[in-house]
Amino acid sequence: MSDDSRIEHDAYGEAAIPAGRYWGAQTARALDIFTLGAERFPAGLIHAFGLQKLAAARANRRLGVLAPDLSEAIERAAHEVAQGAFDDHFPLSVWQTGSGTQTNMNANEVIANRANEHLGSPLGSRSPVHPNDHANRSQSSNDTFPTVMHLATALALRDDLHPALSLLADALAEKAEAFADVVKIGRTHLMDAVPMTVGQAFDAFARQVALGRERLEAVTPRLYRLPQGGTAVGSGLNAPAGFDAVFCQEISALTGLAFTPNLSKFEGMGGHDALVEVSGALNVVAVSLTKIANDLRFLGSGPRCGLGELVVPHDGLTSSIMPGKRNPTIAEVVLQIAFQVMGNHGTVTAAGASGNFELNVAKPVLIHNLLQSIRLLSDGCRLFAERFVSGLEVDRERLDGNVAGALLVATVLNPVLGYDRVAQITETALREDVTPREACLKLGFLEAAEYDRLVDPVRMARPNG
Amino acid sequence: MSDDSRIEHDAYGEAAIPAGRYWGAQTARALDIFTLGAERFPAGLIHAFGLQKLAAARANRRLGVLAPDLSEAIERAAHEVAQGAFDDHFPLSVWQTGSGTQTNMNANEVIANRANEHLGSPLGSRSPVHPNDHANRSQSSNDTFPTVMHLATALALRDDLHPALSLLADALAEKAEAFADVVKIGRTHLMDAVPMTVGQAFDAFARQVALGRERLEAVTPRLYRLPQGGTAVGSGLNAPAGFDAVFCQEISALTGLAFTPNLSKFEGMGGHDALVEVSGALNVVAVSLTKIANDLRFLGSGPRCGLGELVVPHDGLTSSIMPGKRNPTIAEVVLQIAFQVMGNHGTVTAAGASGNFELNVAKPVLIHNLLQSIRLLSDGCRLFAERFVSGLEVDRERLDGNVAGALLVATVLNPVLGYDRVAQITETALREDVTPREACLKLGFLEAAEYDRLVDPVRMARPNG
Amino acid sequence: MSDDSRIEHDAYGEAAIPAGRYWGAQTARALDIFTLGAERFPAGLIHAFGLQKLAAARANRRLGVLAPDLSEAIERAAHEVAQGAFDDHFPLSVWQTGSGTQTNMNANEVIANRANEHLGSPLGSRSPVHPNDHANRSQSSNDTFPTVMHLATALALRDDLHPALSLLADALAEKAEAFADVVKIGRTHLMDAVPMTVGQAFDAFARQVALGRERLEAVTPRLYRLPQGGTAVGSGLNAPAGFDAVFCQEISALTGLAFTPNLSKFEGMGGHDALVEVSGALNVVAVSLTKIANDLRFLGSGPRCGLGELVVPHDGLTSSIMPGKRNPTIAEVVLQIAFQVMGNHGTVTAAGASGNFELNVAKPVLIHNLLQSIRLLSDGCRLFAERFVSGLEVDRERLDGNVAGALLVATVLNPVLGYDRVAQITETALREDVTPREACLKLGFLEAAEYDRLVDPVRMARPNG
Amino acid sequence: MSDDSRIEHDAYGEAAIPAGRYWGAQTARALDIFTLGAERFPAGLIHAFGLQKLAAARANRRLGVLAPDLSEAIERAAHEVAQGAFDDHFPLSVWQTGSGTQTNMNANEVIANRANEHLGSPLGSRSPVHPNDHANRSQSSNDTFPTVMHLATALALRDDLHPALSLLADALAEKAEAFADVVKIGRTHLMDAVPMTVGQAFDAFARQVALGRERLEAVTPRLYRLPQGGTAVGSGLNAPAGFDAVFCQEISALTGLAFTPNLSKFEGMGGHDALVEVSGALNVVAVSLTKIANDLRFLGSGPRCGLGELVVPHDGLTSSIMPGKRNPTIAEVVLQIAFQVMGNHGTVTAAGASGNFELNVAKPVLIHNLLQSIRLLSDGCRLFAERFVSGLEVDRERLDGNVAGALLVATVLNPVLGYDRVAQITETALREDVTPREACLKLGFLEAAEYDRLVDPVRMARPNG
Repeated sequence: MSDDSRIEHDAYGEAAIPAGRYWGAQTARALDIFTLGAERFPAGLIHAFGLQKLAAARANRRLGVLAPDLSEAIERAAHEVAQGAFDDHFPLSVWQTGSGTQTNMNANEVIANRANEHLGSPLGSRSPVHPNDHANRSQSSNDTFPTVMHLATALALRDDLHPALSLLADALAEKAEAFADVVKIGRTHLMDAVPMTVGQAFDAFARQVALGRERLEAVTPRLYRLPQGGTAVGSGLNAPAGFDAVFCQEISALTGLAFTPNLSKFEGMGGHDALVEVSGALNVVAVSLTKIANDLRFLGSGPRCGLGELVVPHDGLTSSIMPGKRNPTIAEVVLQIAFQVMGNHGTVTAAGASGNFELNVAKPVLIHNLLQSIRLLSDGCRLFAERFVSGLEVDRERLDGNVAGALLVATVLNPVLGYDRVAQITETALREDVTPREACLKLGFLEAAEYDRLVDPVRMARPNG
Repeated sequence: MSDDSRIEHDAYGEAAIPAGRYWGAQTARALDIFTLGAERFPAGLIHAFGLQKLAAARANRRLGVLAPDLSEAIERAAHEVAQGAFDDHFPLSVWQTGSGTQTNMNANEVIANRANEHLGSPLGSRSPVHPNDHANRSQSSNDTFPTVMHLATALALRDDLHPALSLLADALAEKAEAFADVVKIGRTHLMDAVPMTVGQAFDAFARQVALGRERLEAVTPRLYRLPQGGTAVGSGLNAPAGFDAVFCQEISALTGLAFTPNLSKFEGMGGHDALVEVSGALNVVAVSLTKIANDLRFLGSGPRCGLGELVVPHDGLTSSIMPGKRNPTIAEVVLQIAFQVMGNHGTVTAAGASGNFELNVAKPVLIHNLLQSIRLLSDGCRLFAERFVSGLEVDRERLDGNVAGALLVATVLNPVLGYDRVAQITETALREDVTPREACLKLGFLEAAEYDRLVDPVRMARPNG
Repeated sequence: MSDDSRIEHDAYGEAAIPAGRYWGAQTARALDIFTLGAERFPAGLIHAFGLQKLAAARANRRLGVLAPDLSEAIERAAHEVAQGAFDDHFPLSVWQTGSGTQTNMNANEVIANRANEHLGSPLGSRSPVHPNDHANRSQSSNDTFPTVMHLATALALRDDLHPALSLLADALAEKAEAFADVVKIGRTHLMDAVPMTVGQAFDAFARQVALGRERLEAVTPRLYRLPQGGTAVGSGLNAPAGFDAVFCQEISALTGLAFTPNLSKFEGMGGHDALVEVSGALNVVAVSLTKIANDLRFLGSGPRCGLGELVVPHDGLTSSIMPGKRNPTIAEVVLQIAFQVMGNHGTVTAAGASGNFELNVAKPVLIHNLLQSIRLLSDGCRLFAERFVSGLEVDRERLDGNVAGALLVATVLNPVLGYDRVAQITETALREDVTPREACLKLGFLEAAEYDRLVDPVRMARPNG
Repeated sequence: MSDDSRIEHDAYGEAAIPAGRYWGAQTARALDIFTLGAERFPAGLIHAFGLQKLAAARANRRLGVLAPDLSEAIERAAHEVAQGAFDDHFPLSVWQTGSGTQTNMNANEVIANRANEHLGSPLGSRSPVHPNDHANRSQSSNDTFPTVMHLATALALRDDLHPALSLLADALAEKAEAFADVVKIGRTHLMDAVPMTVGQAFDAFARQVALGRERLEAVTPRLYRLPQGGTAVGSGLNAPAGFDAVFCQEISALTGLAFTPNLSKFEGMGGHDALVEVSGALNVVAVSLTKIANDLRFLGSGPRCGLGELVVPHDGLTSSIMPGKRNPTIAEVVLQIAFQVMGNHGTVTAAGASGNFELNVAKPVLIHNLLQSIRLLSDGCRLFAERFVSGLEVDRERLDGNVAGALLVATVLNPVLGYDRVAQITETALREDVTPREACLKLGFLEAAEYDRLVDPVRMARPNG
């Protein structure tokens, strides 16, 4: 044993741990085995583990199965983990056993070592606080890891995604108001249709984003049900009666979220339907963002040969070969994030469907993808709002020109002339390259004054006020 | 014009229609163009179109923009379409314009022709009821088709999938009760774990299915918001003020579901986030069914070399080469359906994300996949319940043998002996191929009587009652 | 037994068959059980079953395990099935046992009944030709059905998709030639970039489609390896030595495709990697078509407020509310098909990954999706070529106007002036709303004549000839 | 400007760069903007950029458009980047402009700064080597980044995935040989079928993996076609004639791979079909691995209540609550990786389908997912081979017991007794819980000696040798 490492023992042998690291033998062994990929769990998951271990220790203490002095030391250590003080002591890859056992043991080992340190015992002593008997008391990886999956997801949604969606919805709503009276030609099938306002388009975008929040709220009843208390297979073996309820009280107090026990722990450990459901809601947000980002970049295309109705804010970035070129970079980031979230949803679905018997063993990949999706959508919505949407302007000249030349404004005459005669107007205008007004007068369907009274693009944009 | 066809005209020319068919020129033209694939919309979508046209006619009449005599004829014809009397008059492929315009025009033409017939005019007369000016009054394909998508989905969920999920949840719950006291060895990572009951496994299945219903309920607030009234681009051009609200009153009365106007018609026509969301919920149901079907067929594997804890009902089907072989055919059907639903969800997501500006033009493919998913899940759950779950039996001999030989029952000793000594017990038992009881006694950790008092698989299965 | 049905017996009991139908007891039982969905196998799969049974009978005869008189009768009946004469006698749903056993038994029963009829025995006699002992001789569903999956796929690719892709590639190449000298402004990030020709864009489309063919060719080595001869589990039990090779000779002779035996029948029955691979190639074709259809409909958008560089052919279809509106309906069909194929690929992947031990039991859903994808792509490419691409025209006025106003033509000056000074030109032009020529002269970087000599959009479009 | 940063200027203003960092203003600006997610490109992509810039500089020199002294300095710097000496100077996120322009400019800036340093000019001098005019000479991000995507993919396949697949195929083939004579009962539909050998199962696994290599080889013709030389939109503006061919000579010499110019640069920049195709092949590998990992962990399930035919190697990891539990951890890692690859394929497909006009702007997300898939499959296959497959053993006692009790060995009697009588044997054996031998004798179909001669499980496993 060199100066810069120590030897820890567990029931299966010994392992060398780098000096100053709080993990133990199971973590060290896993670190040696799982040499795959570059993916690591985000800090949020590690912090949620701290909260979970803290709430579990409190519940054990309240139910009399953990001595107060040991519990206090565990709680103090777990709190430190939750605060991020030990992030560097969770070195494991996402790619590990499908139950997340290695990361649970990592948490147990770090917390036991740190608690023992608080109690005056050296790292590796496994006493008085034992990683399995005390830090993991009344718990198994099989109920702990999925509980942490729910916690980390719920916290990331509340703290990151909901605020980001609100920010974006507000930015879009602000533009909806700013452009409420700017008339444009609507497009269906990409083809010129009838007038509307730019504000109406932004209002629809804002609404899509706001509905994203509504969707995420709708899945919380399942997300807030925790399998903690199921222990090894769901039956609660080695956990005291009532552990699940007391744990939920404690974790709810710690997080401010109303978690309750899953009535079938078996359901919450053998499968992760609730998390697949969350991913489905994120998938809808990705779908919404795809629509919005595409519309904005197409409407902002140009500056001279595109649709050019919007002017995209310049960000100082440009082409490596075409000097002066300005591109909708942020909108492209948003699209790419959306594609990632859609793909992640496929991974989450496959992982969620892969459970057998009493355990789904695709937990790490599932939560990795889910938390990545939340993070990317959160960051992406914030950036989209602040760096793109808020800087959008309209090109009124282009918009007015489009409205002046539009063909299908004659649609408003349907109730007066009937569909078939209006068809004659537009066919004539198109064929003879004239305005529908000219065509209508030529066909003798209306007097000029009557036409002008009836066909008013501004009123057409909001026909019922 | 032969004896068995007639010529209809519209604004764009003429078209031959087979005698006795109620469709018109736009449908005939579409029929000639869209010669792709074998996929047709289900009858439910056509019937929903009947309901939509009926409610629209009523709303037009109430708002004074459609003469009562014309409206009555339209309502009568639309009611017939809703009842299925004209299913054979909707010949178009799923593969058509992305707005579903051709099927909307098909409905307009059939209803106009039938209404004219009721009023004494021949097919093809386009008078007094005109397909666009009257059957389609205050409407566009662009708001009508998505409204019908919502209607058909909501009705299929209520009438087909919810009852089927209930049936399956009940069948599973019945088995949970029947097997409530049958002890088995639980499995995590596919490996032998600690005791539980067969009933607990079925209870988890039943809960997964019941939660499927909860998930589908959670998406209804968005599903029940209709874009009807948006007409061409979302602004409501050519629809009278209040059309959306009156339409929703009428369609709610017709269906018994509480539909309300989407406050942004633009949102409901440019995108179909609400339907992507429904598909996400169906995807979760597919995930649940995958878990359940896999567990049941693995637990029923054998009869002699498999897990053999369950006995699968025989359905009279067998192998073409191995006489007497009995296979879990229905479980395999359920799995295949689940794969279809997951793939359909991918199509729905891609379609939902593809909208531009004021119109999503992947409506037909989206609703085709969504309704197929609902149909398959409905039929599959019913079949699964009636032909498979209800006939499952347990093999008690096999179950008891497994419990008797199980290794990790020693887990229950953790709180007494500590994790590390229990590890010694199980390692010894595994290495020496003895029972954990023998290993424990040999290691001198407990007296036999104490071991037997503490290690009781039946009590371990439900440790807290 | 009524007049219009007969009773057939098999080893497991009896079943009523409608009069005039050639199927037997296993089919009848399956028909009673699998009452799900509306999906049926395409005729191509049934015909491929005819070919497979024909080749198997010939191989059995050549290897001396089937009496010539029986074989001849089977061959005659199988040939009739291959020709489509018995399509109506294959009534089963896609949704059946995962091995496709019911459709294999359907084929065995129809062929045995028909062969017996040829030999003078009544339907249902099971003698002299027995469905299992003779029609299925040396075979199992487990090797027969996957062999048919390969056959039907290979034939559909050769007969339908390859010709359709060629048709589309040719139509695109024809436009590439027709528009070879039409200069336009290229677009990157949707923004105006430097000049190119319309022909170059079409050439890229044509190349994408042609590469689709190349991709499909590249997967054939795996597609043409058949598991026939593996029988029940892959070992070839009950098949004579050499059956696989003789079968492949016969089926190659029948189809004109060079099929060879899979050296590991186990590989070809336990999984369907070769078909997942085919689906992956179809997925790329869908990706290519998405790009092409999107480009064409955006370039054809307008007629007055869009990009308007292309004019899309009119198909006589229009809006239900906006008379005279012309939409890129066929391009929308192509996009919808592409979304379907991408989703189907997800289903095929999930199905392909679901195998266990010696059998993948998601065969029916896998082949249903694969053949649907091929059919839709085939029909879609044909329609796209004939009804859309071939009718495309350019709007030269619009194109020339765009070129005249373009900003980034100054890019060509990079090698002369250096990137940083060209950036000054374009920034100035954009800020002051002048042409880059005016900006360049104002900045004093070049003389007018020199600018005009260097900046020639036509030459820029094909700088190296 | 503080001690630890310098100010760089470009055409759009200035930017602060941390001291000692070689990037420039565009990178710094991007770093400030793209504050999203935690994802970074792997080193392999940065190294491939070094190779690309090196080959481009050589081509520019050979074609006379870059002065030898500048080119030599660029080549030296690019070589250093390719060797990994500047990995820390590529700080940008995956989430950037969809053309990868920021990472291309990052490369241009690092190489220009480093080249200037070699030539005696300070960082930030932009002279004599200019990032755009020289490092990016004859290039655009639009052709450079996709070229690097192809390079990085091709190198990762050759250097990482192909060797890993070979390692795994070899490990499986070794077991196939070791267990070539171990007879077991095959399983179809999870149910007991007829005898085979353990070696045959491993041979099928080995073949699946080997075919993965074949699939990846089959896509290389498209992967090795590079769009370099297309510059801004595909036309080759500002690149000398022949640049594409010379570049391919140089990059082929550097890598040992036979790269050739894509004949339509437009095809290779506007879309990435070739990379979607690669992803499709990786998806098949994931499908294969799913099958193999599932089979191995199910066959190794137990130790007492599972199938137990294989014994999985122990890795020293265990349960946090069930002491002594041994789980198939590595197989679970492989499954999770497979789910990730399948989901990534969805992202790659969506990204690949999203191109418009002359540029696909989802390049960064596409290549991030593709390289992650390759890395994970490479690492996963290696780990699977070394830590799992190579340590697998068979449990002969369990296997022999299964063979002795098997029911459907009677299948071998089909050719002798006919299917229907064999069905009687197995039905009787199952109903009366006797061996098929006992049933056959009881039914009087065969004498005991004849039965024993015909029914030999060992011979049945390899009936034709």
